[in-house]
Amino acid sequence: MRGAVIHAPGDVRFEEQPDPVVVDPTDAVIRVTAACVCGSDLWTYRGLNPLAEPRPFGHEYCGVVEQVGADVTTVRPGQFVIGSFVASDNTCPHCRAGHQTSCQNAMPVLGAQAELLRVPLADGTLVATASVPADELLPSMLTLSDVMGTGWFAALAADARPGSTVAVVGDGAVGLCGVLAAAQLGAERIIVMSRHEPRQKLAVEFGATDVVAERGDEGVERIMELTAGVGADGVLECVGTDEAMQQAIRSTRPGGTVGFVGVPHGVTIKGEQLFRTHVGVRGGPAPVRQYLPELIDLVDRGRIDPGKVFDLTLPLDQVAEGYRAMDERRAIKAFLQP
Amino acid sequence: MRGAVIHAPGDVRFEEQPDPVVVDPTDAVIRVTAACVCGSDLWTYRGLNPLAEPRPFGHEYCGVVEQVGADVTTVRPGQFVIGSFVASDNTCPHCRAGHQTSCQNAMPVLGAQAELLRVPLADGTLVATASVPADELLPSMLTLSDVMGTGWFAALAADARPGSTVAVVGDGAVGLCGVLAAAQLGAERIIVMSRHEPRQKLAVEFGATDVVAERGDEGVERIMELTAGVGADGVLECVGTDEAMQQAIRSTRPGGTVGFVGVPHGVTIKGEQLFRTHVGVRGGPAPVRQYLPELIDLVDRGRIDPGKVFDLTLPLDQVAEGYRAMDERRAIKAFLQP
Repeated sequence: MRGAVIHAPGDVRFEEQPDPVVVDPTDAVIRVTAACVCGSDLWTYRGLNPLAEPRPFGHEYCGVVEQVGADVTTVRPGQFVIGSFVASDNTCPHCRAGHQTSCQNAMPVLGAQAELLRVPLADGTLVATASVPADELLPSMLTLSDVMGTGWFAALAADARPGSTVAVVGDGAVGLCGVLAAAQLGAERIIVMSRHEPRQKLAVEFGATDVVAERGDEGVERIMELTAGVGADGVLECVGTDEAMQQAIRSTRPGGTVGFVGVPHGVTIKGEQLFRTHVGVRGGPAPVRQYLPELIDLVDRGRIDPGKVFDLTLPLDQVAEGYRAMDERRAIKAFLQP
Repeated sequence: MRGAVIHAPGDVRFEEQPDPVVVDPTDAVIRVTAACVCGSDLWTYRGLNPLAEPRPFGHEYCGVVEQVGADVTTVRPGQFVIGSFVASDNTCPHCRAGHQTSCQNAMPVLGAQAELLRVPLADGTLVATASVPADELLPSMLTLSDVMGTGWFAALAADARPGSTVAVVGDGAVGLCGVLAAAQLGAERIIVMSRHEPRQKLAVEFGATDVVAERGDEGVERIMELTAGVGADGVLECVGTDEAMQQAIRSTRPGGTVGFVGVPHGVTIKGEQLFRTHVGVRGGPAPVRQYLPELIDLVDRGRIDPGKVFDLTLPLDQVAEGYRAMDERRAIKAFLQP
């Protein structure tokens, strides 16, 4: 089979590899129906994360089960499944508490931008849909594997709820999904920080009530103005830089929470600042496995359409162009199909 | 009247000062019935906080109202009152959200170790008891002005609740009050980190179920052992050093929360660490004003007895000895009466 491999920063190749097979009795192998490019992998693509050797790339996926190991009981060949970007047993204490990405037996899922994919701990990682989704639902279903689940987690962590005011730092696909999540969770006012018109538009379509193009001190000031000097009840930090985290903390009201899902790079938070501001901070890799059943249902019923974040569709063998387009911010998110 | 003034590190004097008077129409002046020495002031006493010039010292107090300004409506001369260490209007958006120490008009209360004390924003800061409390309840009532309210906030921030497992870093008066708060809030297992026998004893009396004398890596390991490798659901950080914060974060289970009330000195939290561990962090100066009515009721009904943290009672004019004793860890907390 063929799949994407990152060889070096900027060098993603779609190349022949051995077919994945069931190794452990808890594995499944799926035929990938759709995959996509994740903003978090741009850190590696840009050489900002270490890359010791070439490795299979991509971790967002949905597809049809081809084969399962002897111990797999909840999914069977022929079923359409969506899975988390982190494999989890879904039975350990951390999983049972809803933090599957901190599973005591967590394993990364690697090489999803491929024709076939081995998923470890299939029972705890994959969720089957009732039937194979219609083509028009595929993009939205795919987002549940990471980006929409991550926006959902950010919104929950920032305590988005009926009547609340939230701000979203970051207008990438995760930030936009965060807007959609906050709207779905009932937030009354959703301020998105964005200076890119197409992203602003999609944010508004997803439920943003205000757009702030300013950044830094001016961005914080604008949010304070918009909230009568109070600050947002919660802020979704969807970037991962220190600037973004500062922006988020400073835009939050005392007692509010920053829900952060941007993979932190050089983020340092001073205890004094949190103490003085009463702002709480909570984040991490989203436990999307927890949300899959609920979000599949919302997509199925047409209540959310996160698939709109895909503004570039490519055949899987052009995966390298997907990375280039996102790196150059020509695309919000690239949808890939074998 | 006479009151404590800190002139320089280690130099606290009880000296003659002008009688405080009502300056603003929202002020009250109270005759102090009891005051005490706060661990947070040891930072200044030890020269670790800047001190530009001599200033009145002490911020925990209860007493009888002597005089009120024209706009004060909720307390009147003759009433026994307890107040927060931060004056708040209790009407601004932050106060209404329960974060009175972040009041938009917050003012410090200074000079509580004195015969008379001016309290700004009296309506929003002071709470009157139904009657003057019996002498034996005085110490417990006094703790509600800061130390017990602070332990209460730490326990709430760490999400102590029926059935939960919490750990407490710090065996000073705040940590001990945190134990008491966690027990009162229903925590099933309360692990206190302490290596001082009298403090261990009091912690157990307050509801601690386990005592861990180890610190650093070994302390974290012990907590992991005691929680079957899971970590505590929440940890109360009641010290304020970077070591204590690290200890707290590393002892918390994924998705759990560190509630921190130790005034941070040099505490730096890496975004990467919080991301990787899924640990939330929330803290600050406790909004004790919010808790006063509830905690006064609990003391009144004999449900909590936080006054036990006082193991040294001195006449107010020996306030300097109170600081010395706490600085040298000869006393957990010093109770002072004019």
